Amino acid sequence: MKKNLIYSPKDFQVTALHCGLKTENQNDLAVVYSESPCQVAAAFTTNKVKAAPVLYDQQIVQAGKAVRAVVVNAGNANACTGSEGMVHTRKMAVATSQLFAGNADEVLVLSTGVIGLPLPIDIILAGIKEAQFPQTWLDVAQAIMTTDTLPKIASIQSPAGYIITGVAKGAGMISPNMATMLSVICTDATLTTEMLAKVPEIWNQTFNRIVVDGDMSTNDTVLLLANGASGVEVESDSDFCDAFSQICTQLAKAIVQDGEGATKLVTVNVNGANSQDDAEKIARAIATSPLCKTAFYGADPNWGRIICAAGYANADFSPGAASLYLKKNDQVIKLFENGQSASYNEEEAIALMQTESWEISLDLGLGINSYWLWTCDLSHEYITINGHYRT
Amino acid sequence: MKKNLIYSPKDFQVTALHCGLKTENQNDLAVVYSESPCQVAAAFTTNKVKAAPVLYDQQIVQAGKAVRAVVVNAGNANACTGSEGMVHTRKMAVATSQLFAGNADEVLVLSTGVIGLPLPIDIILAGIKEAQFPQTWLDVAQAIMTTDTLPKIASIQSPAGYIITGVAKGAGMISPNMATMLSVICTDATLTTEMLAKVPEIWNQTFNRIVVDGDMSTNDTVLLLANGASGVEVESDSDFCDAFSQICTQLAKAIVQDGEGATKLVTVNVNGANSQDDAEKIARAIATSPLCKTAFYGADPNWGRIICAAGYANADFSPGAASLYLKKNDQVIKLFENGQSASYNEEEAIALMQTESWEISLDLGLGINSYWLWTCDLSHEYITINGHYRT
Repeated sequence: MKKNLIYSPKDFQVTALHCGLKTENQNDLAVVYSESPCQVAAAFTTNKVKAAPVLYDQQIVQAGKAVRAVVVNAGNANACTGSEGMVHTRKMAVATSQLFAGNADEVLVLSTGVIGLPLPIDIILAGIKEAQFPQTWLDVAQAIMTTDTLPKIASIQSPAGYIITGVAKGAGMISPNMATMLSVICTDATLTTEMLAKVPEIWNQTFNRIVVDGDMSTNDTVLLLANGASGVEVESDSDFCDAFSQICTQLAKAIVQDGEGATKLVTVNVNGANSQDDAEKIARAIATSPLCKTAFYGADPNWGRIICAAGYANADFSPGAASLYLKKNDQVIKLFENGQSASYNEEEAIALMQTESWEISLDLGLGINSYWLWTCDLSHEYITINGHYRT
Repeated sequence: MKKNLIYSPKDFQVTALHCGLKTENQNDLAVVYSESPCQVAAAFTTNKVKAAPVLYDQQIVQAGKAVRAVVVNAGNANACTGSEGMVHTRKMAVATSQLFAGNADEVLVLSTGVIGLPLPIDIILAGIKEAQFPQTWLDVAQAIMTTDTLPKIASIQSPAGYIITGVAKGAGMISPNMATMLSVICTDATLTTEMLAKVPEIWNQTFNRIVVDGDMSTNDTVLLLANGASGVEVESDSDFCDAFSQICTQLAKAIVQDGEGATKLVTVNVNGANSQDDAEKIARAIATSPLCKTAFYGADPNWGRIICAAGYANADFSPGAASLYLKKNDQVIKLFENGQSASYNEEEAIALMQTESWEISLDLGLGINSYWLWTCDLSHEYITINGHYRT
């Protein structure tokens, strides 16, 4: 597997442009289309408030139709926009289908940005009409950014002869189960039915394991489009699984690393639980606790906040049975055991926490189940970004 | 009822002093004792990790013993301190009982501060020995402060002839169901069995309705001591109920208003729910959402974040049936209805949100159940306080 270079999966065309949703001349609209029909896998937000494009795409995906294109706008979520929101979504699909002389129901629509403002549909339709192909996948990654500071893109070319390339956006309103994140991943492989069925499981291990602020958005969508143009069919036990997981992992981690105001990527690993559900509850309590996240920011090995969060997570937890560690590469620092502080070197713990990426490992000492998440710290910059997002 | 003045309930003696847990010469230790045995009501944290003094007090209260005194230290939580923590708690009770020639099991112990550090018991015991009576209730309120910026005290003298005076501390790690808050409320009334049984219900309407950051602490305790020295017995349908509710409301609101970094007190009112449980889930999702709380801070009527939080609260919610309002005194601004933005004046909404205290009212339009909470905004100062709490 080669990394870092961006490969173009065969027979996918991409473009990005500025239609006027973002200020200045930043691109804010992107189109990806395939010259032939694609298999599609999709995951959507579980928020009861779903943006119009989410409701629209769910209908298409549930109908099992082949898909040929995706149009994405940034700067406006088209959420809580009433029946007009659905009309606008449909218009975006129609305009996009005309770019490749296809049908509107072959187009999926993604929107991201502020909730509740009517979509300025005229400038979007004018933008779609002017779309010039081809541009690069990096252009697409940049066009879909909102509060992201970096484009998120990952690509793999397999020796087996296929390519997977994906883009994602997301920085705030990020919680497991999809949140203010969008991702479009394209491959020129053909997936067997078994491999296609395995996709949600891989997303569950990647995109559903990230927490920035615990808020779950109205627009989250992850799509995989596979057009088979490479002529390679991939089984569920092939190297595709591994390659696809790598792409999703890179994109998911990139979202947390670029979390609003984030300065650190923290892996929260809970094991020794009576059930996986318990492990997950405790991992999420730690990963969303403002007190834990500010301690991460301050590189303060204040383990009391972590043990405290485990205690209110509504899961089986006995402080006397638990052990807590900081880990980075081969370095392991035990902070807590037997219900009280372990003897550790405070300066060593601080130094570890001052680095950009490390792990909290909490062994509950009760059972054999585990769960992990990626999260980030909570900094002044998060407040600055979100206290003044719309202005 | 008279307010604002601080009355001393009869036959309660109070003191506060500096033993060395806090830096400089700030008081960090307080003792309250009654010259006669007291009826007691108590509520404790539901965190699975309970500090030694919480475990200790629970034994005494559950045994139904009369209580005569409370000793409180700030600066160290005596939580996650192993079996030594219980030994230290007992020593604090013994030393305090010697001040009034009583028994150790007539003394309740409260601690607040950093989790996981061994209690420096020698300086505490030396401090208790030196206690000089009487000092004022305000001295007590100041001695128990941690990150609080203001002492929290409330007092009422009833025309019926009794007094209620209470102190509280708490600023961060505050969530409903008690959190890094301590409160001691004393009265010289005698409570009938019915009135005593009604106390938890009043706490449920006051101390259990506050959210600062959603973290629930290991030490939360609320105590009511009633020594009957006024000679007035109060029934459950007497004005005592109202007076006691007022005291608890004042103290609970004071905690939220002094929330770490808080600049605004926001009442979150959810009604029209299919069940009270649903209303509570949605109120708590809004009150703990970092995105809602930063919007409160920025006085940004970004109602999409509120509707979004309602959508992920795991409760019955239909955006098309819901209406959302900003309220302050007689001013009502409808932000959202029929699944989309209401037409409102943005500047008017911003001006309302720029004031220090206002209400969010969300009518779910589904049923007849409701729930409300007090919360605060999330500001840069919260990050500053908690990113560097221990240093």
